[in-house]
Amino acid sequence: MAKLTKRSENYSQWYNELVAKADLAENSDVRGCMVIKPYGYSIWEKMQAALDQMFKDTGHSNAYFPLFIPKSYLSKEADHVEGFAKECAVVTHYRLKNSEDGKGVVVDPEAKLEEELIVRPTSETIIWNSYRNWIQSYRDLPILLNQWANVVRWEMRTRLFLRTAEFLWQEGHTAHATKQEAIEETERMLGVYAQFAEEFMALPVIQGLKTESERFAGALETYCIEAMMQDGKALQAGTSHFLGQNFAKAFDVKFATKEGTQEHVWATSWGVSTRLMGALIMAHSDDFGLVLPPKLAPIHVVIVPIYKGQEQLDEISVFANSLKDELVKAGISVKFDNRDTHKPGFKFAEYEMKGVPVRVAVGPKDMANGTVEVARRDTLEKTVVEQSTAATYIKDLLDKIQANIFTKAKEFQASNTQEVDSYDEFKKVIDGDGGFVLAHWDGTAETEELIKKETKATIRCIPLDMKEEEGVCIRTGKPSKGRVVFAKSY
Amino acid sequence: MAKLTKRSENYSQWYNELVAKADLAENSDVRGCMVIKPYGYSIWEKMQAALDQMFKDTGHSNAYFPLFIPKSYLSKEADHVEGFAKECAVVTHYRLKNSEDGKGVVVDPEAKLEEELIVRPTSETIIWNSYRNWIQSYRDLPILLNQWANVVRWEMRTRLFLRTAEFLWQEGHTAHATKQEAIEETERMLGVYAQFAEEFMALPVIQGLKTESERFAGALETYCIEAMMQDGKALQAGTSHFLGQNFAKAFDVKFATKEGTQEHVWATSWGVSTRLMGALIMAHSDDFGLVLPPKLAPIHVVIVPIYKGQEQLDEISVFANSLKDELVKAGISVKFDNRDTHKPGFKFAEYEMKGVPVRVAVGPKDMANGTVEVARRDTLEKTVVEQSTAATYIKDLLDKIQANIFTKAKEFQASNTQEVDSYDEFKKVIDGDGGFVLAHWDGTAETEELIKKETKATIRCIPLDMKEEEGVCIRTGKPSKGRVVFAKSY
Repeated sequence: MAKLTKRSENYSQWYNELVAKADLAENSDVRGCMVIKPYGYSIWEKMQAALDQMFKDTGHSNAYFPLFIPKSYLSKEADHVEGFAKECAVVTHYRLKNSEDGKGVVVDPEAKLEEELIVRPTSETIIWNSYRNWIQSYRDLPILLNQWANVVRWEMRTRLFLRTAEFLWQEGHTAHATKQEAIEETERMLGVYAQFAEEFMALPVIQGLKTESERFAGALETYCIEAMMQDGKALQAGTSHFLGQNFAKAFDVKFATKEGTQEHVWATSWGVSTRLMGALIMAHSDDFGLVLPPKLAPIHVVIVPIYKGQEQLDEISVFANSLKDELVKAGISVKFDNRDTHKPGFKFAEYEMKGVPVRVAVGPKDMANGTVEVARRDTLEKTVVEQSTAATYIKDLLDKIQANIFTKAKEFQASNTQEVDSYDEFKKVIDGDGGFVLAHWDGTAETEELIKKETKATIRCIPLDMKEEEGVCIRTGKPSKGRVVFAKSY
Repeated sequence: MAKLTKRSENYSQWYNELVAKADLAENSDVRGCMVIKPYGYSIWEKMQAALDQMFKDTGHSNAYFPLFIPKSYLSKEADHVEGFAKECAVVTHYRLKNSEDGKGVVVDPEAKLEEELIVRPTSETIIWNSYRNWIQSYRDLPILLNQWANVVRWEMRTRLFLRTAEFLWQEGHTAHATKQEAIEETERMLGVYAQFAEEFMALPVIQGLKTESERFAGALETYCIEAMMQDGKALQAGTSHFLGQNFAKAFDVKFATKEGTQEHVWATSWGVSTRLMGALIMAHSDDFGLVLPPKLAPIHVVIVPIYKGQEQLDEISVFANSLKDELVKAGISVKFDNRDTHKPGFKFAEYEMKGVPVRVAVGPKDMANGTVEVARRDTLEKTVVEQSTAATYIKDLLDKIQANIFTKAKEFQASNTQEVDSYDEFKKVIDGDGGFVLAHWDGTAETEELIKKETKATIRCIPLDMKEEEGVCIRTGKPSKGRVVFAKSY
C-alpha cells in the first residue's frame, strides 16, 4: 500500500489520499455527488446511532417529509429565499421517452411540470407547511421532530465529505408555544451536538453564536460548534437555529393559547451532516492513515496471525477465536484476519490506514510464551501482554485510547488558540500557524467583512462563555466588550 | 374519535381513514409524495432495524450512492430502460434567480445542465458504474452491499404507503464471480424477506418466481414474496432479482478469474420498501383501528389510570411506574398515559386506533383488590390479573399476541386459497371472494395477458414449492405441469 503524502507537505492532498486509501468515499460521475463506501458508511452509521439515541433521549421522534419542495414555498420566507433558493437542483419534467434515433432517451417535452420542484436544500418550508395543519392549540405543542435525509445544494467546488452537492444529514424541526421554550430547545440541541462531538468524536469544540452575517437564512440566532483541524483551520461541525416566528408567519401557523388568543408558533431547527466525517478524519488522523476514536470505530480490534503453514495457523486460531469471543461478549467489535492472500506486514499497514484502534499480533513465539503483541493505533506503541489477561487489557486500552485522542486534540486546540491585541499581530498569526485567534471586534458587519477581505479569517463565533472584558477592536479601534473567535475555516 | 368506515362496507375507504386516524402518514402538497408522521415512521424504524440486522448477519454492508443518475446511464441496459426510464423526475437546471417582479424565484435559464439528471427510480445503473472501478479480480468478489434510500417513480395514481411517487426503501446490490453464487444470493435474500415477513410482520407469504412479463426490467429471474390482504387481494411484499451478467455487460464490469481469464461479473438486486407499511396495516387491522404485531409496535404496553383527584392518581402512579420499570427492564416499551386532558374512554379508543398490543387499566377498585385489567388489542379480550404477576403475564401475552396474529393471518390465507380447474370457476372465485387461486396455466405470456384482460387477475408467482402435477391450462386447455398463483393485486 503506497504511503500517504505527509500532512506537513500538503495537508489538503493528505486528506484526499486518506479518504481514498482508507476506502471511505469517492467521487461519482455525477458532479459533486459522492459515493460513501462501506467502510466510510459504517462510521457514519455509528454517528447516526449515537446521535439518534441522544435525540430520542431528549424527547424527539423521527419523521419523513418529501424530497421535493414546490418552488413557490422557497419564496415565502424572505430571508430564507435569499440564502437558500439559488443553487438548487430543479426538477422540471416527469417523463422520458425513447429518442427518435432509438439509441437512448430524451426528456418528454409534454411532461413539463406546472410548477417546478426543488430538491430540498433544507426542509423548513415543507415542514412548516405541514405544521400548519398539525397545530391548532397549545395542546399540540411542542412538536419535537427530526428527519434523517439527503439534501442537495449545488456547490461549485466540492470536496469529499466537507462540501458535496448531495449530502446526508439530520435536520431537527421543532415548534413551541413560547419564545423562551424555543430558545431553550435551540441551546439544548447545541449542547447535544457539543456532547456528541466531545464524547464520541473525541473532538473538543467551542460553542458560540454566529454573527448576524453568518446566520442561517431565516434565523434570528444561529448557534454553532466550531472545531479545530490539524492545519489550524476551523470547521463548523453543527448548527442550531432559533427561528423565532419567521416560518410560522410565512406559512401561517398559529395556535390557540390557554387563554384563547391566537399566536404564531415559535420554531427551531438544527442539523449535522456527513461533514462530520470530514471533521473526524482531519482532526485525529496521521501520516499512516486514519485514527478513529473507539466509540466510532466499526472494528475495534483486529487480530493478525503470523504463521507458517496450516499447523501454526490452527494453533493460533484456537487462541484468536477464544480472545475474539471474550471481547465480543463485552460488546467489542473484533476481526480475526486469517486471510492467506496477504502478508502480515500488508495487513498491518491496511489496518493502520483504516484506523482500527487496537491491533493484536500473534505468532509461534507468542504462542510458546503465552503472550500477544498489542499495538495501539493512536500512539503506535506496542506492548507484550500475557494471553490470559489480554481481553481485560484491551478493554481497558480502548477506553484509554478514546480519552487520549480527545486529550491530544484538546491540547492541540489549546496550544493553537491565542489572544491577540493588534491587527499586525492578528495578521501574523492568521498567515502563520493559524488556529483560533481571540480578538476584540467592534460588533459591526462592515468590520467583519473588512477583516475577512484583508486576511481571509472570519469570525467563527461569539463564544457562549465569553468573558466580559473591555477592549478595542483590532481593526477599527472602536470599543468592544469581549473577544470573539477568528480563524480561517473550511 | 370518530369511528372508521367498516372493512365490510368499503375496504379501501377503511384503509385511507385508518392511515390518517392512526397518525401514520398523510399526503403532502407535492403530488404523490407523502409525509410519514412520527408514529408511522417509528414502525418503519422497527422494520429497518430488524431487516438491517438480518442483512448484516448474512454478510452485507451498507453504503450510499448518489441520488442523481445521468440520463445516459438509463439507456445502457436495454431492458432496464424500457421498464424504468420513463416515469421519472428529471433535473434540468441547477439554479434559481429572483423573478423580475421581485415577488418570487424563477428557474435561471442560464443554469441548464448539459446532461439531464434523473432522480433515481432504482440504483442498478449508478452502482454498476461504480463497481467497474471496484472490481478487478476474483479477490474483489463477492461485493455484498445494501443501501437505505429514497427513490422516485412518477406514479399517476398514488395511495399512502402502497404506491407513492417518492418512497423509502432498501436496495441490495451484489456482485459475484459465478452464476451459481449469484442465484444462491438471490434465493438467500428472498428467504430473508420471507422470514422477516413471517417473524416480524406476522405475515404469511408465498415465495415464488415472477413470470417473464412481470420480471424486473433487466433481470433474468425475479423472485418475490406475495401476501394476502383481508380483502383477498395479493400484495407483492418484496422482490429479489437474479440479474445475470446484464448490468456487468452494460457497464463493462469484468474480473480476472483465478485461472487468469476475463469474465463478466454476475449480479443480484433485492428490495423492500415503505410499501410493507401498507401490507402490515391491511393484513391485520380491524374496524377499531390498527393491529400491530408486538415485534414492530413502537409502544408495547400502555398503562391508563382511572381516577378521580390527585390522591387516587398518586396511588395508581406508584404502582404504574413500578410495573413500567419492571417491563422496561425486560426490553418492553411502555407508556404510562397520565394526561389529565383526556378521559380514559378517549385514551382507550386512541390506543386501539394506534394498535398498541396491550392496554393496562388501573382504577381505585383495582388498587383495593391488588389487580389490574389487561386488554389485548388483537382479540379485544380483557382479563383481570394480580398486580404481583402482571409483568410476567404481560411478557408472556406479548409473545402470544405475536403468534396469534400470525396464526390468524395464516388461517385466513389458507381459507382463501383454492384450487380451481375450469375458467368459469376461476372467474367466479376471482369476481367473488377473491383470494389466491391455484390454477394451471400453459406458460405463455399471451395466455397470461388474456386472463388479466378478462378477469383482472394476474399470476402473482410460480410458487417455489409448486407440486409437479399434470393438468391443462384453465384458459387454453393446453398442457401444464403445475399450478401457479393467480389473484387480483395491489
